[in-house]
This record gives sequence, C-alpha cells and structure tokens, in this order.
Amino acid sequence: METLLIGIAGGTSSGKSSIVKLLKKDLAEAAVCIEMDWYYKAYSDLTLAERKRKNYDHPDAFDIERFIADLKRLKSGETIEAPLYDYVEYTRRSETQTIEAKPVILVEGLLVFSYEEVRDLFDLKVFVQADSDVRLIRRIRRDTGERGRSLESILSQYEKTVKPMHEQFVEPSMKYADVIIPRGAHNHRAVSLLRRHLRRELDEITRN
Amino acid sequence: METLLIGIAGGTSSGKSSIVKLLKKDLAEAAVCIEMDWYYKAYSDLTLAERKRKNYDHPDAFDIERFIADLKRLKSGETIEAPLYDYVEYTRRSETQTIEAKPVILVEGLLVFSYEEVRDLFDLKVFVQADSDVRLIRRIRRDTGERGRSLESILSQYEKTVKPMHEQFVEPSMKYADVIIPRGAHNHRAVSLLRRHLRRELDEITRN
Repeated sequence: METLLIGIAGGTSSGKSSIVKLLKKDLAEAAVCIEMDWYYKAYSDLTLAERKRKNYDHPDAFDIERFIADLKRLKSGETIEAPLYDYVEYTRRSETQTIEAKPVILVEGLLVFSYEEVRDLFDLKVFVQADSDVRLIRRIRRDTGERGRSLESILSQYEKTVKPMHEQFVEPSMKYADVIIPRGAHNHRAVSLLRRHLRRELDEITRN
Repeated sequence: METLLIGIAGGTSSGKSSIVKLLKKDLAEAAVCIEMDWYYKAYSDLTLAERKRKNYDHPDAFDIERFIADLKRLKSGETIEAPLYDYVEYTRRSETQTIEAKPVILVEGLLVFSYEEVRDLFDLKVFVQADSDVRLIRRIRRDTGERGRSLESILSQYEKTVKPMHEQFVEPSMKYADVIIPRGAHNHRAVSLLRRHLRRELDEITRN
C-alpha cells in the first residue's frame, strides 16, 4: 500500500486538531489520525506531583523513538499498537490502541517538525498559525473543560513552559513547513485547498 | 468569461515574482500577471531628487483607485491599459501596456493585502514569506543589478523605509492570507500544490 504521511504542526490550541478532524471527515476510511501527544513519556518512576512539574512542551518530553518507529511502520502499511495518554494523571495509560495504516496518515502535534528524522518522513508539512492570545483563550477553555485543570495552574503552566517553549521550539519549526495556514480551522479556503489536494493525491496513489 | 483573481503578497524580494513566473509558465495563455508596482504614483509635479526621497513602501505611494478599477475590469473580463513604472527615473512612463483579461489573473505586490477593497476581490490570497536577511541579500543583488542603484542608497532606503514599512504594513497584512508559503520559490512542494490547485480550478471554470 502506498501511503501519504501528512504532518500538521502548530502552537497550542492553534486549530491543528480541528483541521485534522475536517480532513479526516472528508477522507473518511481513507485516512487515519495520529497525535504526537499520545507519545508523551510515562514518567512512571515519578510521583504525580513530580510529573505535574515536568515541562511537557519540550522535545525531551516525548518518547520520540517509539513515535518514529510507529510512523515508519504506518508509512509502510503496517498496523501499530499506539500508546494512550492520561491528561489528568499525567502519565501513559496501561492500555494501547490498535491503529491500522490507511492511504492518508494525518500526524498532528506541537513539535512534529522539531525532529529532522520525523520531518523527513512527511510527504507534506502543514503549519497551523494563530495569534497567541487566540490560542491562550482556546487553551483555557479546553483545559478547564475536558482536562479538568484549575485556571491558575493553566496560566502558570502557560507562562512557565508553554510560552517559552513555543518561542524556542514551535515557532522556529514553522520554517520547515511546506505551507502555513493562518487562522486555523476558520480558514475555510485553506482547509478546502488542502482537502482537495489530499483527495487528488489519494486518487493518484489509489490508481497506481 | 469567469475569472480567478489570485493575490500574491509578501515582503521585498520574498520570491513573489518567482512564484508568479512559475505559475504563469504552467498556466501559459490561461493566465495574466499584474504587478502592483506598475501603479506607483507618477509624482510628476516633483523633481527627481524629491521623488527619490518619497516612501515607496507606504500604501499612499500607490494610485490605488486606478489599481482597483483595473482589477475590477480584468475580473469582469475586460481589457485594460495598465500604467508602466520607470525605476530609474522614479516616475510613471508615458506609454501604457494593453492587458487582456484571462481566466487566471495573478496579482502581485508588497501591499496587495493592505487594502480591504483589494482583498475582497481575490479568490485566493497567498503570502510569500522569507527571512528578512535572505530578502535583503536578494534586494541588494536586484537593485545594484537591474535597477542600477548604489549600494549605500539601497541600504539607507532599506533602513529608512523598507524595513519600518514592512513591519508596519506588509507583515501585519499576512493575517489576511488564505495560505502562507515559506521560503519563496524554493519551496517546490508549495509551488506544486498551488500550481495543481489553479489548474484544477481552471478546468472547472472552463467547463462551466
């Protein structure tokens, strides 16, 4: 099976997941989505309090070897057992998820363009850009809601690690993108352009 | 005739013209290129020395009414008489150029996204991004070469107007883009994506 590995990077709450969802909805069974966040290190030798203090916006927070190995397997058409992450307990869950390869593999994450070996795997690199205040508002809403965190813990984590790591790692990785999408998923023209591009590429690899 | 008006903005020497050339080469007779620089004001009431001191990176330097009127005419399939600019004399030439409308109209310029009325005309807005030092190197080469200017005049113009105007007008207009292309014409994947998108759109409007 020929596959297309599409990298989707961007700052916290930039709209990466929304764009991935729109593309996945369109491509349906022809696509599969991979989140780099699943590959956060388990840090199971640390206490919950210690794990909470770790910097989750640094490239070192990821089990990058497993991530690369899994992407390579998917790219060559194999099924993987991907890890799952628990955002309340700040650790890897014991169960895994079986992910079958599909012709289009959408790989989303803050730092997917920060590692040369990962970048080289992608057939297309898309960076989703949004203003930092817009991203902060979305992050506050997401983390107070689905991730059950207190407002002050969200804001202090943002100041201490999210913002400096964005400036040190995420923003500079934008230069490796093939295309940059401003305004995230609200940018209908860009989403439509990407959607149609992937459909056409999919048609081509399916014909071969 | 149905037309597609494509705006291509970006800083000085970001690679706008190179991308336009590649798209034009591909679309051949189906496309026509328009440069916003043709619409610099003539300032014929000023001396050459006075004209040289004007700020050519400010939105006020353009005959925007004529630019908008011409774009509207082309968009509705009419032929225009576009102005021509003399970069050595810093004024408009006496002759004009006859431009026939084509299905794809590629409109390139520093500030094409700075005016709401112009932005609203575009079917797709592409911003070409490149590092400021890369752009400066290209600008020095271009202006010492084809435009016959001295190095010191290029550098002092860059410091006095090009850079501040870039920060005040060009950079902020990036937020209106539908897609941003980093690394200019060297970004083969993005150029190919755009090329194929325009071909497909052209097929669709030609079929209708």
